[in-house]
Amino acid sequence: PGMAVSPSTHRLLPLFLGLFQGALLLFFALFVTYDKPSAQAEDASLVANHLYGIFPLFQDIQVMLVVGLGLLLTFLPQYGFSALTHNFLLLNFSTQWALVLQGLLHHFHHGQVHLDLHNLLTAEFAAVTVLISVGAVLGRTSPCQLLVVATCEVPIYLASEWAIITQLGVLDVGGTITIHVFSCYFGLGMSKALFGAVQRPVHPKETPTPRSDLLSLVGMLILWVFWPSFVAVLCQPGDAQHRAILNTLLAMSASAVTTVVASSLLESDGKLSPGHLQNGSLAGGVAIGAMADMAVPPVAALTLGSLSAVVCVLGFKFLTPLLERKLALRDQCGIHNLHGLPGILGAAASTVAILVVSEDTSGSHFSQASPAGGNASEVLWEQWGDYGAGRQALCQAAGLAVAIGASLLTGLLTGAMLRLPCLAQPPERLCFDDSLYFKIQDQAENSGPRDTAEEGALALQERV
Amino acid sequence: PGMAVSPSTHRLLPLFLGLFQGALLLFFALFVTYDKPSAQAEDASLVANHLYGIFPLFQDIQVMLVVGLGLLLTFLPQYGFSALTHNFLLLNFSTQWALVLQGLLHHFHHGQVHLDLHNLLTAEFAAVTVLISVGAVLGRTSPCQLLVVATCEVPIYLASEWAIITQLGVLDVGGTITIHVFSCYFGLGMSKALFGAVQRPVHPKETPTPRSDLLSLVGMLILWVFWPSFVAVLCQPGDAQHRAILNTLLAMSASAVTTVVASSLLESDGKLSPGHLQNGSLAGGVAIGAMADMAVPPVAALTLGSLSAVVCVLGFKFLTPLLERKLALRDQCGIHNLHGLPGILGAAASTVAILVVSEDTSGSHFSQASPAGGNASEVLWEQWGDYGAGRQALCQAAGLAVAIGASLLTGLLTGAMLRLPCLAQPPERLCFDDSLYFKIQDQAENSGPRDTAEEGALALQERV
Amino acid sequence: PGMAVSPSTHRLLPLFLGLFQGALLLFFALFVTYDKPSAQAEDASLVANHLYGIFPLFQDIQVMLVVGLGLLLTFLPQYGFSALTHNFLLLNFSTQWALVLQGLLHHFHHGQVHLDLHNLLTAEFAAVTVLISVGAVLGRTSPCQLLVVATCEVPIYLASEWAIITQLGVLDVGGTITIHVFSCYFGLGMSKALFGAVQRPVHPKETPTPRSDLLSLVGMLILWVFWPSFVAVLCQPGDAQHRAILNTLLAMSASAVTTVVASSLLESDGKLSPGHLQNGSLAGGVAIGAMADMAVPPVAALTLGSLSAVVCVLGFKFLTPLLERKLALRDQCGIHNLHGLPGILGAAASTVAILVVSEDTSGSHFSQASPAGGNASEVLWEQWGDYGAGRQALCQAAGLAVAIGASLLTGLLTGAMLRLPCLAQPPERLCFDDSLYFKIQDQAENSGPRDTAEEGALALQERV
Repeated sequence: PGMAVSPSTHRLLPLFLGLFQGALLLFFALFVTYDKPSAQAEDASLVANHLYGIFPLFQDIQVMLVVGLGLLLTFLPQYGFSALTHNFLLLNFSTQWALVLQGLLHHFHHGQVHLDLHNLLTAEFAAVTVLISVGAVLGRTSPCQLLVVATCEVPIYLASEWAIITQLGVLDVGGTITIHVFSCYFGLGMSKALFGAVQRPVHPKETPTPRSDLLSLVGMLILWVFWPSFVAVLCQPGDAQHRAILNTLLAMSASAVTTVVASSLLESDGKLSPGHLQNGSLAGGVAIGAMADMAVPPVAALTLGSLSAVVCVLGFKFLTPLLERKLALRDQCGIHNLHGLPGILGAAASTVAILVVSEDTSGSHFSQASPAGGNASEVLWEQWGDYGAGRQALCQAAGLAVAIGASLLTGLLTGAMLRLPCLAQPPERLCFDDSLYFKIQDQAENSGPRDTAEEGALALQERV
Repeated sequence: PGMAVSPSTHRLLPLFLGLFQGALLLFFALFVTYDKPSAQAEDASLVANHLYGIFPLFQDIQVMLVVGLGLLLTFLPQYGFSALTHNFLLLNFSTQWALVLQGLLHHFHHGQVHLDLHNLLTAEFAAVTVLISVGAVLGRTSPCQLLVVATCEVPIYLASEWAIITQLGVLDVGGTITIHVFSCYFGLGMSKALFGAVQRPVHPKETPTPRSDLLSLVGMLILWVFWPSFVAVLCQPGDAQHRAILNTLLAMSASAVTTVVASSLLESDGKLSPGHLQNGSLAGGVAIGAMADMAVPPVAALTLGSLSAVVCVLGFKFLTPLLERKLALRDQCGIHNLHGLPGILGAAASTVAILVVSEDTSGSHFSQASPAGGNASEVLWEQWGDYGAGRQALCQAAGLAVAIGASLLTGLLTGAMLRLPCLAQPPERLCFDDSLYFKIQDQAENSGPRDTAEEGALALQERV
Repeated sequence: PGMAVSPSTHRLLPLFLGLFQGALLLFFALFVTYDKPSAQAEDASLVANHLYGIFPLFQDIQVMLVVGLGLLLTFLPQYGFSALTHNFLLLNFSTQWALVLQGLLHHFHHGQVHLDLHNLLTAEFAAVTVLISVGAVLGRTSPCQLLVVATCEVPIYLASEWAIITQLGVLDVGGTITIHVFSCYFGLGMSKALFGAVQRPVHPKETPTPRSDLLSLVGMLILWVFWPSFVAVLCQPGDAQHRAILNTLLAMSASAVTTVVASSLLESDGKLSPGHLQNGSLAGGVAIGAMADMAVPPVAALTLGSLSAVVCVLGFKFLTPLLERKLALRDQCGIHNLHGLPGILGAAASTVAILVVSEDTSGSHFSQASPAGGNASEVLWEQWGDYGAGRQALCQAAGLAVAIGASLLTGLLTGAMLRLPCLAQPPERLCFDDSLYFKIQDQAENSGPRDTAEEGALALQERV
């Protein structure tokens, strides 16, 4: 005894995952193949050079998602193991699922799906949206629920990305709109539908300790360091990529400094809040994505980085408590402050940048617009030349609206689905505790006497 | 007073290391030189390009071995400092020792040994075998014993690698057979010969805490992220390397998901075991090494990754307790489950792959076999064309047999040597404790009242 | 209530930082621009190749400074959050400040400052000096004081670097003299002037715990892994860069092993000291910088690495206590042992190397001197051909003297300035505690009963 999860329920996770792995193997066996090897030595050298260019950036992104994001989520003192493991599991599951869907949608030629590092990378980008969204419900959801979120969100993201990038022609090389804004409002919608309108007091295990805050800060620093790789990896190699790296570096540097200013001004005694630091310093990276490869002057990146940090810290201080009070909306990690608000700001900035850059290409401190900003946007940029910058600016705004609208709606639906009893949502008393999912020693050293989850589970079972 | 190690003994470590450093300096002074610099600008550009290609992968591997593997070993709650430091010391010592031996064996021309980044890399690969083997005896051995292990294992590895790769022509670009299987059975033999047939109860400091499990999980994640660099670094640049990276990524992704399935099914209450996660997710990387650069279809990598995770988790659940009960065999880190079983599986898979790929090169979803898979195997692959795939498949099996046989035998001998009293094996009561080797504050906060190693040492001294 | 810092004082930090960010935005808006994009496809490919070459090294350095150095500084058990955050803030602030100053001094053409990744990198090198210097006063200074240090030290570093590299023509590709020696004596001067001649007993929060020592060790390992990128990033691509990487790897490997020898010999019971390991293993990287790209034989790098580790450990054991006793000089992180002594040793070694290499270029185990060792030294190396190695060797010595003299003097002046009351130096009782600057939960679990900073602050307020 001693488990709140009934026997039939705790078999759902391996059943679901096992079936999925089987289906994945079948799909790969039937359809997926690597590219033909290069016939000539010169091609082989090209392949090698391309690989040397993209692979270090790919590894940087893997570090960000697996180690950096995982550690950032360990701020809940007794939920660190779950945060790291669920993040890792979701990343792998979602990437595999995105590979299947992308293969069917985009890479299915003559009965075969060709797989290369670039496909894996775009599949991983789809997985990022899941990792961000579940931040809104961190600690209050079961692994089964998280897998259902991934199953729903990946196809919706692919559809939304197709509408925004391919149909509307939005320029968004770093995923500000397609990834950050989308996943934020998906997560918020999901949280709202899942938890309903009941307000609950602060959970005793919800408050970070100095140790968990420190680990989370290390996660932020890892994300901060590698963020330029995330923004620049899909850029056209050469000037556009160089510019994307520099813009991201400047924006994130401004964010880091401005977060300290904003946090210090907002707290009555001038002390800094760990939560602000853990998030505000990254806000510039979120916001810069949509205009990172554009020929904007460096000051634009700095300004955007500063503004997004201010917006993020203000969000934590005022908006999150307000939303919780008025809408009973829970946002455990504050994804609205890190991904939602800076994402909207970044989308707006990209609109302004398009209008200003096009007017000012002969100006003194603007470089000539590069003809390419990524595979997808190459065509679009020429389109922009045809139809004018005004139209492109409108497209950016339309893309933002589509991202917010579609994600909120589908997020609400997904959240409603998560209420299915078979998904084994943990009861309030057992939230935020690793020992519900892992064979982990008693955390008595952290929590004083023995008020552990096992006992809670027992108590609950008696009650039920 | 207060130390269990006698004065004459605790001088052995610096003496041995100091003498070795002196001999190393002498050897380098007499024989070792860098390559001549390139005479022409074009060559210089080639050097730079080659360096840009290999250096990021080299750094990835350094992170894996120094940070990732080090943290993975910190699961013993009061032995984290020792685990990290001994791992670091052994890596450096073994690499230097391998440089000397490799220089004498392979790179000695006209009285000079030429040193470049490639030499350093292969020397580091030799060091990896030591780092893996000592996992079997983690926490129960003194630094002196560990250095003796390194001194013995590096030349044995070089001989075994020469027999397996150069003589038998085994294809094993990622070291599945030569590194993982070899070092696993070396470690097990050593553990058996060192600890004999006495069964002992679980040591109170042997059980991980949530905190030490978390740190170990972070180590696993770092290893998981950078593993593709380890497998692919010695591949022929171009298609073979690209394939090795993709195969490794797929295998490890399948491992990660399958580990959760297997661990959840095996535990009665559906909870996951930290040990399974820390190891199973890496099993795919171990197994894929032998066939990573072959022109197998992607499904093969996925399948191998899944199977190796299953095998690893089953090993932890059933085989390790069985071996401990029946053979009194101790395997502290479970290297048999992470390196032994998946390694054997990977060797078997490479045999099958060779037979299938050669029959099926005209098949619908198989790409044409590339003519090259690494410097060593380039020749061999052509040989294979001459003698047929059957012979190559036999070679793989023979290589596996050689690796297991040679390592078990030499491991037993090495383990017997470790029983020398002058090597200062720590007595059972003082095992798993940093304070035996480091000037570290009392760990009272972890262990409740004051049952620390110092006191244990005193008690022991009185007893002796 | 409950804060020792008066309301007017705790507004100084955001005010200062906010004004600086405003001025930075203004400067960037008026003057800074990116390079013109390449006009031709061939140039674009060159840009991409150059970026692929330098960007992975740049990221390595970012990891070193943000994560590695940050974690290294977390050895103070209740000051980890401050150490990481202040390090991060100082890095960003100093880099921005150096960008402005460098732009004005070196890159101001036709009213514009051109910004690229190389500028950012050199600005980050300027910031490194600040990060090193403040190690001498870690835990006893307020953020405002740290920002004043950065404001003063960056221009002084730029002037000193100009004098040493551009005027004297010193060869120092890895910053041994210009960065390590300079920042060490700047920090020591500052500490002396700031704390005066009063000797104080050991602070109760000054002693590392096993946990904080472990985290600090992880930081050291991260620095150790990526150090070769730091030394080699500014080298001329090709042979010189390859040599710089190999020399650094050898020096650091020798340091790691020799540190164990030295620490074990110096401690009476043969146990290793965590502080020695955390610093000694890096000493080789500090010392090798000045001669890393020279055509010295590999044994020179090994020898220098071993010697610098010995010097570093001896410094910790004897010199630091001596300086504290005789001069009341505080050096919290032991920067004199890690940066000062190995730096001086490295400068001396570069002098010897220049004399020996030039005499012995036809020797059996010396490669031909490469004509290039970095942008700055390319010209100088030819100069050296003209004027002879003796003159160059003298220059190295003169550069060392300038670095020490200038930094000590300006460090003393800066330290005197830090005594301004408005900079809010924390009183002794509140030192080494995160809760003075961060809204962090009580650290009761670490410190037993409730003797926390809040209470200390209250007590102090009553006293004042």
